[in-house]
Amino acid sequence: MSVNSFGHLFRFTTWGESHGPALGAVVDGCPPGLAITEDAIQPYLDARRPGQSKFTTQRQEPDQVRILSGVFEGRTTGTPISLMIENVDQRSKDYSEVAQAYRPGHADYAYDAKYGFRDYRGGGRSSARETAARVAAGGVARLVIPEVSILAYVVEIGGDTIDRASFDPAEIYRNPFFCPDASAAERWAEQVYAVRKAGSSIGAVVECVATGVPAGWGAPLYGKLDADLAAAMMGINAVKGVEIGDGFAVARLTGEQNADPMRPGAQGPMFEANHAGGIAGGISTGQPVVVRVAFKPTSSILTPQATITRPGENGQSEATELFTKGRHDPCVGIRGAPVVSAMMALVLADHKLLHRGQCGT
Amino acid sequence: MSVNSFGHLFRFTTWGESHGPALGAVVDGCPPGLAITEDAIQPYLDARRPGQSKFTTQRQEPDQVRILSGVFEGRTTGTPISLMIENVDQRSKDYSEVAQAYRPGHADYAYDAKYGFRDYRGGGRSSARETAARVAAGGVARLVIPEVSILAYVVEIGGDTIDRASFDPAEIYRNPFFCPDASAAERWAEQVYAVRKAGSSIGAVVECVATGVPAGWGAPLYGKLDADLAAAMMGINAVKGVEIGDGFAVARLTGEQNADPMRPGAQGPMFEANHAGGIAGGISTGQPVVVRVAFKPTSSILTPQATITRPGENGQSEATELFTKGRHDPCVGIRGAPVVSAMMALVLADHKLLHRGQCGT
Amino acid sequence: MSVNSFGHLFRFTTWGESHGPALGAVVDGCPPGLAITEDAIQPYLDARRPGQSKFTTQRQEPDQVRILSGVFEGRTTGTPISLMIENVDQRSKDYSEVAQAYRPGHADYAYDAKYGFRDYRGGGRSSARETAARVAAGGVARLVIPEVSILAYVVEIGGDTIDRASFDPAEIYRNPFFCPDASAAERWAEQVYAVRKAGSSIGAVVECVATGVPAGWGAPLYGKLDADLAAAMMGINAVKGVEIGDGFAVARLTGEQNADPMRPGAQGPMFEANHAGGIAGGISTGQPVVVRVAFKPTSSILTPQATITRPGENGQSEATELFTKGRHDPCVGIRGAPVVSAMMALVLADHKLLHRGQCGT
Amino acid sequence: MSVNSFGHLFRFTTWGESHGPALGAVVDGCPPGLAITEDAIQPYLDARRPGQSKFTTQRQEPDQVRILSGVFEGRTTGTPISLMIENVDQRSKDYSEVAQAYRPGHADYAYDAKYGFRDYRGGGRSSARETAARVAAGGVARLVIPEVSILAYVVEIGGDTIDRASFDPAEIYRNPFFCPDASAAERWAEQVYAVRKAGSSIGAVVECVATGVPAGWGAPLYGKLDADLAAAMMGINAVKGVEIGDGFAVARLTGEQNADPMRPGAQGPMFEANHAGGIAGGISTGQPVVVRVAFKPTSSILTPQATITRPGENGQSEATELFTKGRHDPCVGIRGAPVVSAMMALVLADHKLLHRGQCGT
Repeated sequence: MSVNSFGHLFRFTTWGESHGPALGAVVDGCPPGLAITEDAIQPYLDARRPGQSKFTTQRQEPDQVRILSGVFEGRTTGTPISLMIENVDQRSKDYSEVAQAYRPGHADYAYDAKYGFRDYRGGGRSSARETAARVAAGGVARLVIPEVSILAYVVEIGGDTIDRASFDPAEIYRNPFFCPDASAAERWAEQVYAVRKAGSSIGAVVECVATGVPAGWGAPLYGKLDADLAAAMMGINAVKGVEIGDGFAVARLTGEQNADPMRPGAQGPMFEANHAGGIAGGISTGQPVVVRVAFKPTSSILTPQATITRPGENGQSEATELFTKGRHDPCVGIRGAPVVSAMMALVLADHKLLHRGQCGT
Repeated sequence: MSVNSFGHLFRFTTWGESHGPALGAVVDGCPPGLAITEDAIQPYLDARRPGQSKFTTQRQEPDQVRILSGVFEGRTTGTPISLMIENVDQRSKDYSEVAQAYRPGHADYAYDAKYGFRDYRGGGRSSARETAARVAAGGVARLVIPEVSILAYVVEIGGDTIDRASFDPAEIYRNPFFCPDASAAERWAEQVYAVRKAGSSIGAVVECVATGVPAGWGAPLYGKLDADLAAAMMGINAVKGVEIGDGFAVARLTGEQNADPMRPGAQGPMFEANHAGGIAGGISTGQPVVVRVAFKPTSSILTPQATITRPGENGQSEATELFTKGRHDPCVGIRGAPVVSAMMALVLADHKLLHRGQCGT
Repeated sequence: MSVNSFGHLFRFTTWGESHGPALGAVVDGCPPGLAITEDAIQPYLDARRPGQSKFTTQRQEPDQVRILSGVFEGRTTGTPISLMIENVDQRSKDYSEVAQAYRPGHADYAYDAKYGFRDYRGGGRSSARETAARVAAGGVARLVIPEVSILAYVVEIGGDTIDRASFDPAEIYRNPFFCPDASAAERWAEQVYAVRKAGSSIGAVVECVATGVPAGWGAPLYGKLDADLAAAMMGINAVKGVEIGDGFAVARLTGEQNADPMRPGAQGPMFEANHAGGIAGGISTGQPVVVRVAFKPTSSILTPQATITRPGENGQSEATELFTKGRHDPCVGIRGAPVVSAMMALVLADHKLLHRGQCGT
Repeated sequence: MSVNSFGHLFRFTTWGESHGPALGAVVDGCPPGLAITEDAIQPYLDARRPGQSKFTTQRQEPDQVRILSGVFEGRTTGTPISLMIENVDQRSKDYSEVAQAYRPGHADYAYDAKYGFRDYRGGGRSSARETAARVAAGGVARLVIPEVSILAYVVEIGGDTIDRASFDPAEIYRNPFFCPDASAAERWAEQVYAVRKAGSSIGAVVECVATGVPAGWGAPLYGKLDADLAAAMMGINAVKGVEIGDGFAVARLTGEQNADPMRPGAQGPMFEANHAGGIAGGISTGQPVVVRVAFKPTSSILTPQATITRPGENGQSEATELFTKGRHDPCVGIRGAPVVSAMMALVLADHKLLHRGQCGT
């Protein structure tokens, strides 16, 4: 019952902090015989890598992944795959301020309340840097589900949403926002740049669609595909909401409006709509699996905020103000897209194996 | 790795189907020495019980819970608590139609795709009737967390939301909608009655607030309090979205707007806002824990919908139409409120014990 | 992480006490579509059932198993199978002595030390009566592994071992000792009868052999087939030792003596010996899986033994003496054989599914 | 449900192979605030380290452990502790023989049968080299249980047992056999030397005693302290038997002989004997916890043995002979002692936390 692990049969454990020597993931349960190299995983890390545009943090990390175990002669052996990423650019800045007071909106206070002690350098374990380990693990997961295509993209920044009519998958990798709508990307460039210049930050919504998932993955009632996706996504730093298919919009629909009627098709049922987001009763229906994830604005902003100091010897906190210097993403949701995509891959790989174990197919 | 179990240290397993002889839950990990009787659990089941108003299903189930183990002389012994609820009103209706075709929007097709076989009577295991077992288990969980108060209520039905200015907790139990706003409850009565008369259904949003949760519960990074809540809520039948604190609204906020500044207080920090919904970095902050859950409109409606038959001997499905007779909730979100409340209790009880195990407090 | 559950993918949870209204098991992960009836499970319970000969406890329990969920039209549905066995013969004897003092050799003191409270009626949850639930679950497990035959038998009682030259599998069910050697059974009848008459008890060793297990089941390194068998067997009441293949005898062998040389065979390798007991590196080799399990003499004897009372209000225990009246097995190992057999089935069923999930075969 | 992880709340995951670049363990669930350095862990690795006497393998590995995460300013933070040990002396020998045929008694055939593919260099993941990771994790576990003292020593090699009357704990670290009896150590030196010279190997029994374990650790019925110990020990390479307390000897005892009578003592009960090995009903009694573990003779011997080749293109294996060159322990049980000790620490640390979570003490 590791609280740093995720998954049923395809299971990964991550370790590492923002400013430690390295971070990594141990992937357990990867089937044997899959062709794998570091080069197959690296592109996913590159997509998440910081310092690539003026719209993300300027921390420079090569994020080179090394495979330390579980692979022999270019193939997985079925034993644990240890992935390690060294931290390089841990700037030797002064963290004394953060050590003495809690950054509002961050996990600083909660960690201290829980553990009575914390690694305050760059957020320690609570830093979004840990998501590099998830993305590396996700790279392995993709090898397990070659039948599935996953697309993750930003659909909203600061209230400005994409135009679905202009949706172009190819556009996603042409702009620094993983935005499938070229004109929205242009608007966002201005908006995010302004936010950044103001020392502020802004929220975003990421959508992720997996096509090619066959009907039957998922496990009622406490290993539901959608419940596992919800846990996977809500566990990403800065995420405050998760929805499947029509999500919160269903609350405004009637049963007729929300229906996904079926007709017979050559390859199984044809659905006339996908309000359900490809999941019914916790089990995939064969339609695209659709998830949307809300990222809050980065809590690290330049505006000073009221906060309190760590309790001193007298057990009392003092009022103080903090603003976050450091190097931060003005819109953490942008780099969240590759993480959402990785978590989707990890959940689906897990459920593919689980279904095979449960039902033999 | 039971897919019918939930929880880390306080863990429950449910069993049973809509039309079997009984259903139940086995609660494992309940601390010893707690005073417990069936009467302490029954009120939660009564709140969820069907057939209590014209706005819910007319199936009549007494939902009397029996404790079969784990209790001696009125106190928990630390061993598994077996809870059983007998099914009484399994109407001997003709399910032959449902046996031969898949009800759209239901789990029928997905279960059949997964298992190649299904209990088609009333949805079998996928029926919302299983939530009675969760509610019973939740009744035990509440004994573990006497310091916590949980309130769950409906905030929106079919796009009509409550007026926060009229919020009255006492009102929640005065109307059949668990609605904290008396005038909204009146409007909903008309709306739901009309929907029901039309043989249709409607969606809803349930909000749940837990006060009294101390700072420090939750476990980074894959046992986060919010991630576990997301899984717990998304695993409830008909749920399509979960959000914590401001949820999806954060995507439209800037860092300044989303901040929860702190000031020193006599009993720990005073927060000036609670956009975070009481959780930061996956750990409780001592503020109220706030979750919102979207329920889709019940898929069972009287309007005939296009669907397909089970594949025959030639492996082919035929096109057909189905409408759902049976007895169904026109707005499944209403009776969802006690279930959301139970899941909140179950997650919090679990994290209280987990935190004690991890950190000794 | 239920401590009342066992298994990876085929997982069961038991509940119930010696003197509660009922006990049971919830079996999760049973594949769908298997033909199953209560009649298929009952014979295993009958073999374990008390009160069948003068060599076992005289408690009379019909041990009728009921299936409450997970089965539809005579086949498993893939959802949890709830099995319940009602307790009938809970003699209303006076337990006041046991309530006030700890029976030596029993779990009484340990339970009280752990929980600060215990169900003292007949040992409560620590009673061997709980093994009825395991045997019922084992009956389901056998359906999952039709390719495997399991034989469990007693090979030693009180130092008197069977003669391997007289081994006759058919004999096992002809005597009340599950003894494969007719003449040993005769000797044991005298020995156990004498022990019983003396109000004493005696230890035993059970051996269990599973044939038909294909090579490849098991999972390095912490889900090893032998490690899981060791946990399964050591978890049975009164067990103090477990060995695989040659077991402790290997400590006296050289590498040459312990070798299991292989030759090519028509159906895979032919092994010239089976010192390894069918498991290498935690994975089955295709040879018979051989386990031996040591049961201590029942702690309940008529000879008074020194013990202590529960601490009184002053926190002090007093010295006292106890002997156990009740109805007890003079040799608990005898009825252990069906339990060992059930645990073997449960572990193998689990590893069959796990292997399928991991490796797709 | 990682099969490369062990533990409930204090849980570790190992990774790595004999001839990969490194191996390691991720320890999850270590409480925060414990003082820890690499120097505190290294001595345990040094005790297990190969190449230290002529009675163990001549592979030279410094086995320097590095802490990569989870520690800040010399204290544990409550987050995962990543431990890494680099492999240095992976001799570039020719493994072509082993690649083409299965070494009898090794896991070669079983791994290939399971995975259809294996890392044949030095046994890959099935190599006892993996136990270095367990020993490192065990070093962390010891920090969690300062109240417990653990002693592991060899009590038998090749049928020659120690004289309990000559038991001297201090002697254990004075000879290369972890032998508490000086004269037995002398005899073993001759015996093991002869075995080694003959290119053979020999079995051994390791005993491990933990004192200071309070009453109450352990969890009925499927997280029993003895069941977890059995799994932990049986999962060590080359182990074929595990017993608690009197173990298999109980089968020859009567109830009177096996009794552990209690008398009141100043610090809780005084036991007059410890046949139970400190565990009753799966829960510690406060007495020393006693485990014995049987190690088979190393399968790698110089005598050629009949074996088979990997199936060729025609799916057929050929008969062949193999003897193992390489560098091997003539008595793998000797270096097993530090591993047994580590597993004891890991199980006890886990159950201490689990008990605290369950019962709050």
